[in-house]
Parts: sequence; structure tokens; C-alpha cells
Amino acid sequence: MRVGELSKRSGVPVPTIKYYLREGLLPAGVLTSPNQAHYDDEHLRRLRLVRALVDVGGLSIATVREVLAAVDTRDESMHTKLGAVQEAISQPGQVELDPLAVKDVQAFCDRNGAPEGFDVGSSSVTQMLAAALSAARSVGHHHFQEVLDPYLEGMRIIAKADLDYIAHRGARDDVIEAMVVGTLIGDAVLKAVRRLAHAQASRDAIGEGTA
Amino acid sequence: MRVGELSKRSGVPVPTIKYYLREGLLPAGVLTSPNQAHYDDEHLRRLRLVRALVDVGGLSIATVREVLAAVDTRDESMHTKLGAVQEAISQPGQVELDPLAVKDVQAFCDRNGAPEGFDVGSSSVTQMLAAALSAARSVGHHHFQEVLDPYLEGMRIIAKADLDYIAHRGARDDVIEAMVVGTLIGDAVLKAVRRLAHAQASRDAIGEGTA
Repeated sequence: MRVGELSKRSGVPVPTIKYYLREGLLPAGVLTSPNQAHYDDEHLRRLRLVRALVDVGGLSIATVREVLAAVDTRDESMHTKLGAVQEAISQPGQVELDPLAVKDVQAFCDRNGAPEGFDVGSSSVTQMLAAALSAARSVGHHHFQEVLDPYLEGMRIIAKADLDYIAHRGARDDVIEAMVVGTLIGDAVLKAVRRLAHAQASRDAIGEGTA
Repeated sequence: MRVGELSKRSGVPVPTIKYYLREGLLPAGVLTSPNQAHYDDEHLRRLRLVRALVDVGGLSIATVREVLAAVDTRDESMHTKLGAVQEAISQPGQVELDPLAVKDVQAFCDRNGAPEGFDVGSSSVTQMLAAALSAARSVGHHHFQEVLDPYLEGMRIIAKADLDYIAHRGARDDVIEAMVVGTLIGDAVLKAVRRLAHAQASRDAIGEGTA
């Protein structure tokens, strides 16, 4: 297909596609004449992945380039590739970590058999967790880590649904694109669903009629 | 206690306390001399709640005032009060809602017995959900609503843990303060725990060794 068709099928404007080509985020098409290139379904897939990383993930062009390099490495398993993308889209903000919160996170990971690479210090995911528990401690909530085990229990059900959602995608770029979209949009969906679950639980526990 | 002691016990600087007093977010203390006021544990509780709403919840002073008015209304149940606070801390961003996403949210609420007040259009929580599903549709994910039911199933376990966390707090302001902190810091904790659950599920399903 030509660049116009690629734009139409992906929903990405032609000037943006040309920008991605210049930045090396999208491989060049096959030249069919001096100023016309041909693109295929692989380009379309890659373009959708780049858009998910930039628009949904909010990643910088430099970070997208790193993520794509990890995706394209031949000798890594899909599990490792997914892990690398997760790390890239899970950057914690700049926060002072409370050493007690770090200790809580380490204990939580140890007792729940966290996969390799989830050490506080090396993983952005555990850093994000330690940052949130540090924030809780800073406003006087020193026992918030008590919720971690039931949180993980609930999240296992949710993670299974997430994996089912991406399972039937064949191409590697499609799997990763679905994971990025599902992870980031899923976070927003879960925030809302959690509030609905709160309202249901509060109605059941406290009752709508009691004071 | 004097204002200095109130500051020390709450961790809120004296000038900030004076600002809250001027803005009517904190009731005046009892004057013990022309320029000295006395504060009690009720002031301390209210101050912690205001700080949670402002610092953790990121609410404007005007919104905090509305939330406190709802909290202080005598003839509403705790369930109603908690719902009003949830709405205030769950403002969705400005987004174009996709009518198909709105339909999906309505169907989801209907089949899961959402509590009263969860109509799309009147509730900020369902709006947040419709906004997230609209974002998914805008990047070509038209079936993301398939995850909603398992998401709710997992979130019921998490909501139970949340309710347990706030259950043993006696005073009304403490319950609400714990709910605000738990909801907002809990969102960040859940994002991290979800990524850990993904890594575990991916390891189990795909395997670390396979390509």
C-alpha cells in the first residue's frame, strides 16, 4: 500500500508517519519509483505499536526507540520482551523512598514469589510500589502494606483477563501493542471499576439506610 | 492544645493551618485569651482529612469545602457520604465520549447491579469508565469491554480489603480520611501490583524459556 493508504488504515496522519520514518521508528518502505514507496502489513502493525507507545503510553521518541529495539531482539523470549516494555511504561515519578516502605515491598515480593528482576532498586514496578507506600507513610498511614496480599489476589484474576485479551493476537507487534493499550487504558478502567466495587461493598456492609 | 501542638501532631505547618482557618476548612478554636485559641482532637481529625483531600486527592479549596459540607450533613448515611466523597475525588478529564462506549458501560452497570446513582451522565465514576473505553476505541480496541466483568470480580476482593482497612476507625472524619488516602494511594499501589501479577501470569502462561 502507499503512504496514503497506510495513513487511512492506521488513523495516523501522513506527516506523522513521515516523522516516524525520519526518526527510524518505522522501517522505510520499498521504493517503487524515485518518490513513491510501498508499505505492507508489517508497517501497519509497527505503526499501531508506535502510536500506542507514544499516544497511549506517553513515551518519548527516545524511549520508544529503546522499546522497539528490545521488541526486535531475536534471542529474547516473549516473556522477557513483555517485561522490558512493562518496565518502560511504568516509570515512577521522582519521590523520596521511605526505607520502611522499601522493606515492606521486599517482604511482599519475597513471600509471593515475585519473578526474577523484581528487586527494589532494579525494577521500576517495585519502585512504583515503594513510592506509593512511602506516600501513605508520609500522611501517617503506616500499615497500608496490609492490603498488598489481597490486592495481589484480586489482581491475579484481572491479570488473567488481561492475558486472555492479548492471547489471540498472532503477530508479535500486535501482542505488544495490545499489552501497552490494555495496561495503560486498563489502569483507568480499573480505577473506575474499583469505585463501583467500593460502592457495592459499602452498600452491602454499611447499608444505604443506616447512619 | 495550642496551634503549635496541632501543627506538630498533624505535620501541617502553622501558616497552612491559619490559611485553612481563614478559608473555613477548619472550625475556629476556643479562645482562651484574646490572641490564643485552644484546639481539640476533633480539629486534629478534620485537619488530617483536609490534608488528605488537598495533598493526596489534589482537590481545590472550593471542592474541599463542598466535600466537607457533604461530610457534615446530619441526615445522610455514611454510605451516601462516602459516595459523595468518591465522586469528588474521581473527576474524569475532558474527553469526547464515544456513544458505543457509553452503551457498553450502561450494559455493564445494568448486568452487575450497580448501586443507584451510577448512571452514565450523572456519575463521575461511570464517566471515567466511559472515557477510558472511548480511548480504547479511538486506538482501534473495540472489544475492551470484554474485560469488565473479570475486572469487577477481581476488584470485589480488593474492595473488601479496602473496607477492612477503614473499618476499625471510629470517628467519621477518620473513616473518610482513610477512604480518601486508601482510594488514591491504593490506585498507585494497584498499578504496581497489577504489573507484578502480569509478570507472574505471563511467566506461568508463556514460560520464561520459550520464544
